[in-house]
Amino acid sequence: MSDVKEVLGSYSTDITKTIEEELAIITPDNLSEASVYLTRAGGKMLRPALTLIVSEAVGGNKESAVKTAAAIELIHTFSLIHDDIMDDDDMRRGMPSVHKVWGDDVAILAGDTLFSKAFEMIIKSNDTTPDQNNKALATVADACIKICEGQALDMGFEERFDVSEEEYMEMIFKKTGALIAGATKAGAIMGGASDEVIDAMYEYGRLIGLAFQIQDDYLDLASDEETLGKPIGSDIAKGKMTIIAIKGLAGDESGRLLEILKAEENSQDEIDEAIEILTNCGAIEYARNLAQESVEQAKEVLEILDGSSFKQALIDIADFVLERHS
Amino acid sequence: MSDVKEVLGSYSTDITKTIEEELAIITPDNLSEASVYLTRAGGKMLRPALTLIVSEAVGGNKESAVKTAAAIELIHTFSLIHDDIMDDDDMRRGMPSVHKVWGDDVAILAGDTLFSKAFEMIIKSNDTTPDQNNKALATVADACIKICEGQALDMGFEERFDVSEEEYMEMIFKKTGALIAGATKAGAIMGGASDEVIDAMYEYGRLIGLAFQIQDDYLDLASDEETLGKPIGSDIAKGKMTIIAIKGLAGDESGRLLEILKAEENSQDEIDEAIEILTNCGAIEYARNLAQESVEQAKEVLEILDGSSFKQALIDIADFVLERHS
Repeated sequence: MSDVKEVLGSYSTDITKTIEEELAIITPDNLSEASVYLTRAGGKMLRPALTLIVSEAVGGNKESAVKTAAAIELIHTFSLIHDDIMDDDDMRRGMPSVHKVWGDDVAILAGDTLFSKAFEMIIKSNDTTPDQNNKALATVADACIKICEGQALDMGFEERFDVSEEEYMEMIFKKTGALIAGATKAGAIMGGASDEVIDAMYEYGRLIGLAFQIQDDYLDLASDEETLGKPIGSDIAKGKMTIIAIKGLAGDESGRLLEILKAEENSQDEIDEAIEILTNCGAIEYARNLAQESVEQAKEVLEILDGSSFKQALIDIADFVLERHS
Repeated sequence: MSDVKEVLGSYSTDITKTIEEELAIITPDNLSEASVYLTRAGGKMLRPALTLIVSEAVGGNKESAVKTAAAIELIHTFSLIHDDIMDDDDMRRGMPSVHKVWGDDVAILAGDTLFSKAFEMIIKSNDTTPDQNNKALATVADACIKICEGQALDMGFEERFDVSEEEYMEMIFKKTGALIAGATKAGAIMGGASDEVIDAMYEYGRLIGLAFQIQDDYLDLASDEETLGKPIGSDIAKGKMTIIAIKGLAGDESGRLLEILKAEENSQDEIDEAIEILTNCGAIEYARNLAQESVEQAKEVLEILDGSSFKQALIDIADFVLERHS
């Protein structure tokens, strides 16, 4: 797992340099600072690294994909900034969120600026053909529309306790999976892959994106507070619909579980009781299996690629999604 | 002038149809409705009509530019939705603004969705080459960055009374002129114009954009309440920096003018007094002349085009910018 972090880290210099260069020319200063702030906060850079690794795994080079990779990180950052306003989240990556530092208005604008910059960067990729740039941009634009739809779906789930598994899977695909799938697909496009390989890389990204989100739901109940950096069972306390809660609400003790999920406040005993219900009815195991199956499928999809250290990195990243504890 | 409104109106069916088709597929329903709402509120459609007219004036056809034209209207709508949140404006085009109907969160998302859709539409233009699509998209992305920068500059002008004419001109170019210039340039690109003509069309758009904003400042003082749809002198009442206020503050009676601009509330007598100061020092005439010069320059730029009814429409639109009363 530490290997995967090293691999991701080895790409971050190129990505960060490209981002810094592109954002330095924005004026006025407060907009420039608010735009670049979160990109300096030490994110994992998973999405842009995937773009670069895929471009190399399909036989391309990372130079031709680096602007697109950086653009994808900007899109991710834009969505975090706007989501934090909507969800009124005060902290992000261990720092006050953009709207807490500069206010909602500048935060809205900073997000919009990153969004615009991202598209400009993809289209100005100059080691690739206009057709490749077009396809990469269409891929990212499609992901952006899905991110908005996914966030709207997620907001619509609040105060709802009858969300179906299908609705939930659509939501997490759009909110989380689509940009990861866009990142891997765009890497394949910029690396000059065939249409078949491009489609396969989208599928790989979609599958690890789903596993990533389901693992988040799982860790909320199965990790420990110190490792996770937040209390265990916080999704239950918030009454949040996760794949585990949805499965539990279809189980034998759904009445008591619903009471706990609906309560304004929960004692630690109630959280523990809910976790026991979810364990006993197999909901936690179900989620874990679902994530594992997605990762296995993702690795099968990779068989289309010739063997290389880059292909191995993609296999390791798929495993990492399940092995991570926070 | 009614001719110009007829010309703009004659393009609106194509633009509206394209927008409706593209936005119909967005889910969930509340996001779809919030996204399409303002586009149905009867805007002038000046920007997308300019894209189509320019594409025809350079010898292209409107079919190859219609997705880009519709995209530019979506970018304009996106910026209105986000600006209304930032400025807390309750009304837009005679209707409650998007954030008043759906709340800030859905309004932020609706803007983001229109933004994503706009880029997707340009890149999917299929009567044009990938190179044309790329160039049109780079043009629109550049305009979007400038819109964000212009809005940030404008917000930075609040509570400032020492804004220079140069700062003001930069702000209005970025906030208003850049998208109009982007609209005319993108029309030229999609119409297959030479680089020289593409640059000229950008300059035409930039000049009428400046004239458009300066005329807005002028009408606030020189129109009448019934025609304008809001009280005369509302910019003075708000203490807003306009080209006229900036020029007046450089004049002999700047002390009294500054008092009135800084006051929390103004009587009608004070508004009238400020208008008299601005008239006497020549600030109103200065603005009017500046708008007229921009329009004259815009028409000179058009001399690069061969004669056609489309070229004539562009001349008429330049004149319309000054002739309009609201």
